[in-house]
Amino acid sequence: MLGGYGYSSDAIRDRVREAAAGLGYRPNRLARGLITGRTQTIGVVAADIENAFYASAIRSVGDVARSHGFGVIVTNSDENLQLEREAVQLLMEKRVDGIIVSPADLNRPKHLLDAVAAGCPIVQIDRVARGLEADSVTVDNVGAARQCVERLIAAGHRRIGFLAELEIGYLGDVASFLKLVKKAPPEPHTLYPSWQRLLGYLGAHRGAGLAIEPRLIRRVGAYSVAAARATTHALLSGEQRPTALFTGDGTMSVGALEAITALGFAIPADLSLICFDDLDWMKFVRPGITAASQPVHEMGRAAAELILSRINGDTAPVHRIVLPASLTERRSVEPPAEPAA
Amino acid sequence: MLGGYGYSSDAIRDRVREAAAGLGYRPNRLARGLITGRTQTIGVVAADIENAFYASAIRSVGDVARSHGFGVIVTNSDENLQLEREAVQLLMEKRVDGIIVSPADLNRPKHLLDAVAAGCPIVQIDRVARGLEADSVTVDNVGAARQCVERLIAAGHRRIGFLAELEIGYLGDVASFLKLVKKAPPEPHTLYPSWQRLLGYLGAHRGAGLAIEPRLIRRVGAYSVAAARATTHALLSGEQRPTALFTGDGTMSVGALEAITALGFAIPADLSLICFDDLDWMKFVRPGITAASQPVHEMGRAAAELILSRINGDTAPVHRIVLPASLTERRSVEPPAEPAA
Repeated sequence: MLGGYGYSSDAIRDRVREAAAGLGYRPNRLARGLITGRTQTIGVVAADIENAFYASAIRSVGDVARSHGFGVIVTNSDENLQLEREAVQLLMEKRVDGIIVSPADLNRPKHLLDAVAAGCPIVQIDRVARGLEADSVTVDNVGAARQCVERLIAAGHRRIGFLAELEIGYLGDVASFLKLVKKAPPEPHTLYPSWQRLLGYLGAHRGAGLAIEPRLIRRVGAYSVAAARATTHALLSGEQRPTALFTGDGTMSVGALEAITALGFAIPADLSLICFDDLDWMKFVRPGITAASQPVHEMGRAAAELILSRINGDTAPVHRIVLPASLTERRSVEPPAEPAA
Repeated sequence: MLGGYGYSSDAIRDRVREAAAGLGYRPNRLARGLITGRTQTIGVVAADIENAFYASAIRSVGDVARSHGFGVIVTNSDENLQLEREAVQLLMEKRVDGIIVSPADLNRPKHLLDAVAAGCPIVQIDRVARGLEADSVTVDNVGAARQCVERLIAAGHRRIGFLAELEIGYLGDVASFLKLVKKAPPEPHTLYPSWQRLLGYLGAHRGAGLAIEPRLIRRVGAYSVAAARATTHALLSGEQRPTALFTGDGTMSVGALEAITALGFAIPADLSLICFDDLDWMKFVRPGITAASQPVHEMGRAAAELILSRINGDTAPVHRIVLPASLTERRSVEPPAEPAA
């Protein structure tokens, strides 16, 4: 577990360890730091500490870190590049040995490159910044979203709404993204999760030979329950409203349910629903909500193991771990009430 | 905002500030640290980072801290005294200027006293350790719980279940606590929130002249959804089951709803329900759940303001801020189906 660098020579380090073992002494973090030149601390920059995804991932990072004698300190970027820069600076000042981060802007990772250059390894979680050759742990968002939408198509739906953040990380709007996809589909790993999930939505339609109706794709523009509620309300109040809805993350799902409840729509009789991210309440609302689950604890554990490995001197090429999401079927999907056009 | 201590004299500090201002230079955290002898960092020890209460409080702490040029680093104690000691040690190693903590054990605050003695001020949130003369921000749990149970009694319920963690912080069981309350009611602020809420439950019964049935008070023993589910299932499957249920925190509420759904009970026809902590889904499940809301963002802001004030040299006597919770009425309460015995 001890790394190959630090200011003590291997021989001194070994003698210290032997002496410590002989005394039955379990060195604390500071004492180990004297041996290894490290502080035995992992830093985490969560993109949104109020999102259950990060809370659960942080919990798992902490479990793995502690089992290796490391502490964890967490900061929150609130999906804001400037706050992320400050968070990374703060963690570097606190001399963490490595940082786990969900980059807030995939196109501007300079502060992360600087951290790596300063000897602080980085592991990315949830998304991957361009030009940052650092390990990553993500899920197969395209495949999982495609599976969700295929499930709705198989039930007979032809007008399927998609509600997602779709703001950060791509500099154009939905219309220009659709053009781009037709011309030259972007590599999924260069996109934010919500855009990846849109790719899955498009792929399911293409696979079934269905045309895309751009008005059914609703960009909420922020990770905000209030904005998601307003956008859903507009989508479901219009003419030719969708008979099914696919939500792109947990925040969207909460806002969508608030709007559906306010409108008095029954699920699935009036509207079928599949949500991305399986939140605790989706199993006890009636009917239960069919949802895609990310293996969030596994993601946290994998990120912690990668950063510990890099801290310990692993110089292997970049690891890109992509985990599958799974679809949990409940009772929120049935065929549309009227035959679709 | 600058404190009165540090290794620079006031004269030097003033000259540095003037020079900085003259250059149009906004000092960063490290530069300010040279002036103030501080690191411009607040540490937070969350008792359970997966609980929405802490995530929201941390968010508010961060907002206030940042507006004063402070960074925030967060650790998780998982309601475990040993992990809390390690977390405080880690934050002290990282030279935070002050710590906000929800003490995991109200009877063993020695590590917190040590931190204060070492010059690191402490602010307590959610609960107050015995013998720790440090500021605190809590809610009036007794009053809020009493109001919830009075609401159920007013609707005609006489057999009201109470589901709560009721493990940490009090060294006896529920029966011995009931005896203690009869003899000499403990000061609420010496108790953990779940025991305070039990005091409110008892007070509502006493106020209405109703006898307590100890079998209706269920101790879950941990902040665990699975344990809450199993305990609720047992409570609702027995004879003379309660006609109403009051849950003691968000984790209990999730477990209770899972059990209620599994048993096929309709709310409120089969069971009235009031929950402590108003979670996002309580407004869009059908029927909506009547719930007590803690002013969690206000609590986080108040804790941040207190710690900043102490860091800046406030030597006033200890502040004990107790905020009210509010009851949000929805549709989960109606009179019991059969007249109570």
